[in-house]
Amino acid sequence: MDSIVSTPRLSLPERLLEGQRGALARAITWAEDADSRFPDLLEKVYSRIGQGRRLGVTGPPGAGKSTLVNQLAKNLREQERSVGVLAVDPSSPFTGGALLGDRIRMEERTMDLGVFIRSMASRGSRGGLARATVDAFDVMDAFGLQDLIVETVGVGQAEYDVVGVADTVLVVLCPGAGDGVQAMKSGLLEVAHVLCVNKSDRPGADRMVADLSEAVHLRTAGKDMWAPPVISASAGTAQGVDDVLEAIAQHRTYLAAKGRLQSRRKEQRLEQVQRVLREGFDGEIWAGRGLKAYAESMIEASATTHGAAERILEDLLNSLPKGWSEQQTEGSR
Amino acid sequence: MDSIVSTPRLSLPERLLEGQRGALARAITWAEDADSRFPDLLEKVYSRIGQGRRLGVTGPPGAGKSTLVNQLAKNLREQERSVGVLAVDPSSPFTGGALLGDRIRMEERTMDLGVFIRSMASRGSRGGLARATVDAFDVMDAFGLQDLIVETVGVGQAEYDVVGVADTVLVVLCPGAGDGVQAMKSGLLEVAHVLCVNKSDRPGADRMVADLSEAVHLRTAGKDMWAPPVISASAGTAQGVDDVLEAIAQHRTYLAAKGRLQSRRKEQRLEQVQRVLREGFDGEIWAGRGLKAYAESMIEASATTHGAAERILEDLLNSLPKGWSEQQTEGSR
Repeated sequence: MDSIVSTPRLSLPERLLEGQRGALARAITWAEDADSRFPDLLEKVYSRIGQGRRLGVTGPPGAGKSTLVNQLAKNLREQERSVGVLAVDPSSPFTGGALLGDRIRMEERTMDLGVFIRSMASRGSRGGLARATVDAFDVMDAFGLQDLIVETVGVGQAEYDVVGVADTVLVVLCPGAGDGVQAMKSGLLEVAHVLCVNKSDRPGADRMVADLSEAVHLRTAGKDMWAPPVISASAGTAQGVDDVLEAIAQHRTYLAAKGRLQSRRKEQRLEQVQRVLREGFDGEIWAGRGLKAYAESMIEASATTHGAAERILEDLLNSLPKGWSEQQTEGSR
Repeated sequence: MDSIVSTPRLSLPERLLEGQRGALARAITWAEDADSRFPDLLEKVYSRIGQGRRLGVTGPPGAGKSTLVNQLAKNLREQERSVGVLAVDPSSPFTGGALLGDRIRMEERTMDLGVFIRSMASRGSRGGLARATVDAFDVMDAFGLQDLIVETVGVGQAEYDVVGVADTVLVVLCPGAGDGVQAMKSGLLEVAHVLCVNKSDRPGADRMVADLSEAVHLRTAGKDMWAPPVISASAGTAQGVDDVLEAIAQHRTYLAAKGRLQSRRKEQRLEQVQRVLREGFDGEIWAGRGLKAYAESMIEASATTHGAAERILEDLLNSLPKGWSEQQTEGSR
């Protein structure tokens, strides 16, 4: 490197590992944009990844997720833990600013360098948001943030995909409007490791806790599986917030036993490889390698959509090295 | 074929083309489940596809989409056109029955064989719902239904992906609750070909029509692009429903000119090939061809997620036939 410049300019990975917040913000933007420089960045900081605790928070709009996440962050800060929050909105592909407003103000108000807050919108990518969330978590982890929280705006498959990249998923509900019944119907119970009935001063809260507990019991009793605790809280008054953190800690203890955390994270890394591959397939192979043009010629020659796809898949399978898994393994580092 | 059986049993494609509703229901289930028999079914009915007009309807919950779709179907029936309605709920991966209740009752009540109604939920597949919607539309089209309508429950990227498979996208909004502002922010304007302000008897309806018209004008004025008409309607009283149909017809006329419908559908077919390929990649190559095991060995040898994916993509690219697009084209049927 040329040493004419008196202040040597550090690379992004170096600045990230040095703890520069601007570098972290830039790295997350690279993750969000699937920037071609991201893989190299990740490579350079990879050994520093793995210590951060990863929490996903989802629930219907209006359940008070943001307020609860703010309280969780506050309590964690009191325990001297640094906190990173990703606010993700899969339902707003074109904008995504609304969610961020309050949070930025919170960050600015606290002036606390132990808290890092960032929002991400999907920018039209299909399924790319879970990929970007993992990448953002990884760089926040390498940066040294100890508690990583991803919060979604609403509920649904896209949101479950996003929060599913965490170690523990917290589902936040609030009494009224049949939320409990909805939750049981919509599959929220299946993704939850901890259930929180927020706004517990509202009528119907106790009933909701009882209903959810019963539903959890029916689902898990007698089976070798984690039974999500149902916690009553009121994030507005900070009541019950410690109980939520305690329940999350219990789930961590459960995961730590029998190597469950390790195997969950390994499976999640493989899912991430698959997500990156999918994007590479859409980009480099479909568009870049002329697969789209090939499909077009088949469609013009009146092949069906499925016929064209089957034929291409067959070509792909035939051109793959035989015995892929065995042959290739030794070459990996 | 053996002729011992006196009543020859028709195949599913034959029964579909014969107009048996049970066969259509079965074919849609195959589409929904990505059944391995679907490609062959599609092949057998493919020449009968292409006449159906395809409409997508989206908008926030409570905007009155279902009521409006019912009215549209009723008016189309008065014009002696047969109608197929797909009700799709991307946000409910685990269930999907709620939406259907009323609709089935409607179908049963009318006892009208010119109307076919069906709901689909995502069953946890990522992005598979748009693929299933196109497949379902294709068999409904082959069956002979003339107006195909897909209706989503809410709004968001997954919903836009689904309604985007139609020729024309109708966005339904209703006055109040800042829906107009939300719509402009959330990208609904970008996906709409026709905008309907439903429940037009409510306060704020005129203002909303004016605001949306202004937003459309700002977006499209002076550009060579379709300017979505903003229609005021009240589906509950059927007022304005004909205007909505008229606006949809105008968009069809616009599409028909300069071969736009043809090029839009061609692009949609290619997107469908890509969706089917993606599912094939996840299934046959990732899981079936040992790619997952290969990635696992790399991760264990401490490759990064992106490093492993890049390496696999490189292997895939290297093993593809050189000059793929030229060499392969002549072989296509």
